[in-house]
Amino acid sequence: MTRIAVLSGGVGGARFLLGLVEAVDAADITVIGNVGDDVEVLGLHVSPDLDSVLYALAGVADEERGWGRAGETWQTLEEVERFGGETWFKLGDRDLGLHLVRTQAMRAGEPLSAVTARVAAALGVRPTLLPATDDRLRTWVDTPAGSFPFQEWFVARGHRDEVDRVRFDGEVTARPAPGVLEALRQSDAIVIAPSNPFISIWPILAVGEIRQALETRKSPCVAVSPIVGGRAFKGPADRMLSRLAGGTGPDRVATCYQGLADVLVIDETDAAGAADVESEGVRCVVARTVMEDVGSARRLAESVLAAALD
Amino acid sequence: MTRIAVLSGGVGGARFLLGLVEAVDAADITVIGNVGDDVEVLGLHVSPDLDSVLYALAGVADEERGWGRAGETWQTLEEVERFGGETWFKLGDRDLGLHLVRTQAMRAGEPLSAVTARVAAALGVRPTLLPATDDRLRTWVDTPAGSFPFQEWFVARGHRDEVDRVRFDGEVTARPAPGVLEALRQSDAIVIAPSNPFISIWPILAVGEIRQALETRKSPCVAVSPIVGGRAFKGPADRMLSRLAGGTGPDRVATCYQGLADVLVIDETDAAGAADVESEGVRCVVARTVMEDVGSARRLAESVLAAALD
Repeated sequence: MTRIAVLSGGVGGARFLLGLVEAVDAADITVIGNVGDDVEVLGLHVSPDLDSVLYALAGVADEERGWGRAGETWQTLEEVERFGGETWFKLGDRDLGLHLVRTQAMRAGEPLSAVTARVAAALGVRPTLLPATDDRLRTWVDTPAGSFPFQEWFVARGHRDEVDRVRFDGEVTARPAPGVLEALRQSDAIVIAPSNPFISIWPILAVGEIRQALETRKSPCVAVSPIVGGRAFKGPADRMLSRLAGGTGPDRVATCYQGLADVLVIDETDAAGAADVESEGVRCVVARTVMEDVGSARRLAESVLAAALD
Repeated sequence: MTRIAVLSGGVGGARFLLGLVEAVDAADITVIGNVGDDVEVLGLHVSPDLDSVLYALAGVADEERGWGRAGETWQTLEEVERFGGETWFKLGDRDLGLHLVRTQAMRAGEPLSAVTARVAAALGVRPTLLPATDDRLRTWVDTPAGSFPFQEWFVARGHRDEVDRVRFDGEVTARPAPGVLEALRQSDAIVIAPSNPFISIWPILAVGEIRQALETRKSPCVAVSPIVGGRAFKGPADRMLSRLAGGTGPDRVATCYQGLADVLVIDETDAAGAADVESEGVRCVVARTVMEDVGSARRLAESVLAAALD
């Protein structure tokens, strides 16, 4: 038995996890998901990153679009638009079923972690999926155009503004959700998925006790760079690295996890930067990190596990 | 110009209104709708009677099913079911668009009447549609099996329990929504639609000032019986009349509106009961009240107007 704890954002993390469940027993995986991008839309609590992981692991994600449910329809949103309601955040009919159930449960006092567990079970998801925290924690970005709640910047403004700083509203008081610390302490390896460090992983680490658990870890922690040849596969990670970490080289990714990761897995394309990573005090492993399909995701997961457990 | 105020429940009232808008200028009609059957489902505020009227007048109602939207789909509810959420009250994908927008607006402090006006405008509905009250008013039924909130009895229990009494939670403090009293005072005729007296019209009359406005009316008030040959076209009106008013004859309907209606329009089938109605002090007009189509609904509306204005 090899117990793995994975810190994960949305799409990139989900893709990695689809490989990981092929490489180890799914029941030995605990995913600690980002909730900093959670948002209230149409009065509903939406957890985009948790849901991306959930839908991917359940096999009901829309692979082509890259978010939301396969076979999705948009009847509700059409009516919402007709009535002048919020349509900036695209909630499909199937997706809404989850948001309605979750929101009602949370209003009735059920913690996000409990609802997530119920929903994951209903979808037949075998890894344990935990929100980093049940408390309110919200990512904000400071940009030259002002400060924005995460989704307003990311979705409504199409993340067009450069980011000067990322902040986490609620970080001072947020406690880890039940099971998070246990998973970090009892796992044989901790993996930081190939997610955007600033807006997918940092919000998890913003929970003080989670950061401490990583700082005082007894098991190795392996981070996977989300950058290939200076470019993010998707999203603004490359632009954010340039501005916030001084470049897009793999060593710049390493600095994002200073003191937290023992190993950084980087793509073959970036092999020349391995020495720079090591000079940051982090062991560097070169692998193919591009995941076109489950097979390549599985091979990446195996490389990560080898790096952790060797 | 003939200004008409109509007290209406859901389906029967909606059908009548479809005829009325053919008989008079739609802009001269104010519908005062029942909100006693409003219900919170999946955390959303649902106003079934208002919505039946709204959807009918907008031409987007599902005529065949008799409730909800035409072209409806059920993707959201399928997911809600998968996640163990509430599915006893059937909310379709299109229908949900309205409930989401309304609920969010009401949580932000917008009164039901204001949301209703916005939504009606968006659907191109020309008559003015007002909820009887913006305050919380909920119909309860006392039955041999216990007391139930209206929709729990009506939908969840399929109105199988006999009703001993109808009560209206909030009636003591409920005030008429803006425009309701003006519409009643300034109209040339007041019509009580062929709706269930106890659970569609009484909840409107439970608002004290509305009942007073009817009691002190200067314009004639014409009620249309929802009973034909002792049977309700739909729903439990006949059973309720038997138990609560001592029978299903047209005079029993008249007693439901004692002191409030000047005229009762009854179906040809029940012509023999006209004298009994008149002995209750209410003028009786015999007409065809069965509405198979818009044409027959229009003819009924014309009979009603003639009875009121002659």
